[in-house]
Amino acid sequence: MRVRQDFVLDDVDTRGTPGFEGDKDAAEGSLGIGAAILADLQEKLFAGNQMGDDPRSLLLVLQAMDTAGKGGIVKHVMSAVDPQGVQVATFKKPTEEELAHDFLWRIRKEVPEAGMIGVFDRSHYEDVLIAKVRELAPPEEIERRYDAINEFEAELAASGTTIIKVMLHISMDEQRQRLLKRLKRPDKHWKFNPSDIDERVLAPKYREAYQVAFERTTTPHAPWYVIPADRKWYARLSVQHLLIEALDAMRLDWPIATFDIDAEKKRLAAS
Amino acid sequence: MRVRQDFVLDDVDTRGTPGFEGDKDAAEGSLGIGAAILADLQEKLFAGNQMGDDPRSLLLVLQAMDTAGKGGIVKHVMSAVDPQGVQVATFKKPTEEELAHDFLWRIRKEVPEAGMIGVFDRSHYEDVLIAKVRELAPPEEIERRYDAINEFEAELAASGTTIIKVMLHISMDEQRQRLLKRLKRPDKHWKFNPSDIDERVLAPKYREAYQVAFERTTTPHAPWYVIPADRKWYARLSVQHLLIEALDAMRLDWPIATFDIDAEKKRLAAS
Repeated sequence: MRVRQDFVLDDVDTRGTPGFEGDKDAAEGSLGIGAAILADLQEKLFAGNQMGDDPRSLLLVLQAMDTAGKGGIVKHVMSAVDPQGVQVATFKKPTEEELAHDFLWRIRKEVPEAGMIGVFDRSHYEDVLIAKVRELAPPEEIERRYDAINEFEAELAASGTTIIKVMLHISMDEQRQRLLKRLKRPDKHWKFNPSDIDERVLAPKYREAYQVAFERTTTPHAPWYVIPADRKWYARLSVQHLLIEALDAMRLDWPIATFDIDAEKKRLAAS
Repeated sequence: MRVRQDFVLDDVDTRGTPGFEGDKDAAEGSLGIGAAILADLQEKLFAGNQMGDDPRSLLLVLQAMDTAGKGGIVKHVMSAVDPQGVQVATFKKPTEEELAHDFLWRIRKEVPEAGMIGVFDRSHYEDVLIAKVRELAPPEEIERRYDAINEFEAELAASGTTIIKVMLHISMDEQRQRLLKRLKRPDKHWKFNPSDIDERVLAPKYREAYQVAFERTTTPHAPWYVIPADRKWYARLSVQHLLIEALDAMRLDWPIATFDIDAEKKRLAAS
């Protein structure tokens, strides 16, 4: 659901499926249909840049607590799209070099190119989330960052990037079950990190930090969506829907040939 | 087929399907089965780096004349794989900045990171193909480049990258039909460029340049494969097969947990 004025994160039902009446099977069918639509729209976005120099692009920002399903979104939603047209950037703990620069330095390098769909798996929002919760920066620096983020996103939007910011929201119980599964299954161990539990304990503080981030960085050109994510199928369908909606609003079409079609047919026949 | 000593490009039957007995339907079924196998292997490659710091990666270099199907390979073979684990780099006509550097400068920036599968849609081989055919560099510079490429690839292999170099090979007739289709269909116009016909006319010179490139840059750690590509389904299946074979040879497995599983289960239960 789109974050509007008076939105309260704690009021969100993480098991809810707002706007969707069906069950898991219906959602999976719907995801399959959406995959073809998304693939078609993405190809037009890409084509428009290749031939028409259309400067537009799409950026999906994914934020969430561990296990909420960011990786699953990339795998199950973005795999519908030609890999040539997608840039996935994963932001982890900043390196020494990254820390020596402004927090947006590493982000700017990963902004999607014209014609592309970019996905941020975590993002500049970590710099007002974990940074706030764990006091990695002084409060006045955190304050400065909200404004810097708004400026950065406004600049990005002005250059032709449609921005969609998503927070996947799961309950504490659901997170426990998912972490337990990662601990039980040898093929899931690699997804677990002991620090996941340290972060989990701080969940109430993270929710507060998200609430502030929503209040400070919700803008018309860079809206936030909080998606209930206890049901993975619902979260995937919702994100796919947001992407389709955003691309649809761009009114994309196949670009007009920049060459003389008949003349080229003759040259081809003679070659 | 793997390029070995005495390989002659002109002897390749571009409509052939060496090593595969079935028809198009059988190939598509086989591609579907391979997709699941490829996805599983890729996840292990990725996991091994995430938890075990496994430095290995895979690089697929795709070279071909226009319309031979490089884009289709990326779309139909690589889409089986989690987008998070794939880096596609497309090399076009070099920019002014790129030309001001050594030809490998822009290539080095796109080498796959540890745990990743990288795909080069065109590559450093353009610098000994179009550069040779169109005399964009003096002969002694082209000569120097074969050695530089071998050194670069040896270095890459030594750092843990498995390299697969593929040339998709189509006939002149097949190319004419495919170009004509691009000229006829408005949704394909964006894939056409008048320069495609200029290049087409030079096809015999390109075949010579490929032949020399094979002779000079076929090494045990960076083999060349020439794949008959008049039948798209055969080319896709062949490339998928090469990728599976390469990943299989890495003997990948789920990484061993670097934490105490029971201790973490207890911490989780208490959280």
